[in-house]
Amino acid sequence: MNSSILRKKAVILLSGGLDSATILAMAQQQDYDCYTLSFNYGQRHCAEIAAAQRIAEHFAVCDHKVIHLNLDCIGGSALTDAGIAVPITGLTSEIPVTYVPARNTVFLALALGWAEVLGARDIFIGVNAMDYSGYPDCRPAFIRQFEQLANVATKAGVMGESFHIHAPLLHWHKHEIIRHGVQLGVNYALTVSCYQANEQGEACGQCDACRLRRDGFAQAQVVDPTRYV
Amino acid sequence: MNSSILRKKAVILLSGGLDSATILAMAQQQDYDCYTLSFNYGQRHCAEIAAAQRIAEHFAVCDHKVIHLNLDCIGGSALTDAGIAVPITGLTSEIPVTYVPARNTVFLALALGWAEVLGARDIFIGVNAMDYSGYPDCRPAFIRQFEQLANVATKAGVMGESFHIHAPLLHWHKHEIIRHGVQLGVNYALTVSCYQANEQGEACGQCDACRLRRDGFAQAQVVDPTRYV
Repeated sequence: MNSSILRKKAVILLSGGLDSATILAMAQQQDYDCYTLSFNYGQRHCAEIAAAQRIAEHFAVCDHKVIHLNLDCIGGSALTDAGIAVPITGLTSEIPVTYVPARNTVFLALALGWAEVLGARDIFIGVNAMDYSGYPDCRPAFIRQFEQLANVATKAGVMGESFHIHAPLLHWHKHEIIRHGVQLGVNYALTVSCYQANEQGEACGQCDACRLRRDGFAQAQVVDPTRYV
Repeated sequence: MNSSILRKKAVILLSGGLDSATILAMAQQQDYDCYTLSFNYGQRHCAEIAAAQRIAEHFAVCDHKVIHLNLDCIGGSALTDAGIAVPITGLTSEIPVTYVPARNTVFLALALGWAEVLGARDIFIGVNAMDYSGYPDCRPAFIRQFEQLANVATKAGVMGESFHIHAPLLHWHKHEIIRHGVQLGVNYALTVSCYQANEQGEACGQCDACRLRRDGFAQAQVVDPTRYV
């Protein structure tokens, strides 16, 4: 019998940040053969793409792909339009301008396509609805709805198979994520969270992503390995 | 009052084929300001991208964008993997190898992103579940499910606004689509349907897309303007 039949495959959305590195470690611990997917979507913080590559190598994944996608031609977000500044004054109750319209729908759709080609039925995404920026596509309702869509959108779904969207960090605080990741051996020095990291992957320390990350390390009482400018 | 407030905007998925040219004409007739979206996704029949450009110019749309997306790095379809031949022996009861996993989910997700940036709440897609190849993402259940997803995935949805996915051709036969398009002034000579059209946009006449199209013109009793090799 082919050994590949014995292990389940999973597609992991790997942004290069803290959360996605943690879910990759979790998927490996659950004995999935891991296939990681990153996006070069015209984002301001393209240092995260190199970080994702390093993380994929560190975890010796089965395959790592980078899909190129010129979302900057649509714009509408501080992350994809150089004319919109990244906020550095802290989170408010509003959805911030770093929201990229339909980004997680696009990313999950592409992960779904690759999963179907691979014969994988499990997709991992590191969204979080606790210490987060209020993005609509990071909420439980979105994940549930996408899972339902996956099962009518695909040949596999029509054949009666089910896709499962795993979002294991949905209800975790950042410090809990970090503590768990440290236990699993994640090297957070490899990750980049900053929305405006420079080419060397050095973080600004002021944007929402930096604030959430720094507070997380402080609350977890773990040394923050982030390189700040 | 700004005149742009008086007209609604719509994003139209424009593949360059017969169906999508028809829905563009329908959206214009319904007085939408039309924004057309095409994809260069590594498809075998990239002549359709040039066709979409011609159709967009013909209809003088407000804006036409082409998103580049290397789906061929995933493969898994005769349209995105040069190693899988396009079938030329006619449709069977199986979903054919021209099915591109999750393609319409990806395309609608990107249309949704652009719609949100534009302030459009209407998206048109030319899927058809009558004279079609049995693709799962061309069925009414898929369209309904995506519409539900759109309203939890986006900032606009969270703010209580609703997206509407228009699929006006879902229940039409090909000859009905053609007759209606002719009435609306669609010049089908601009369109390319063939899965393996050459660079000049000439059709093979043998693939499923060619068969459905040719039969449609015959049944509609409209002269077929397709250029065959």
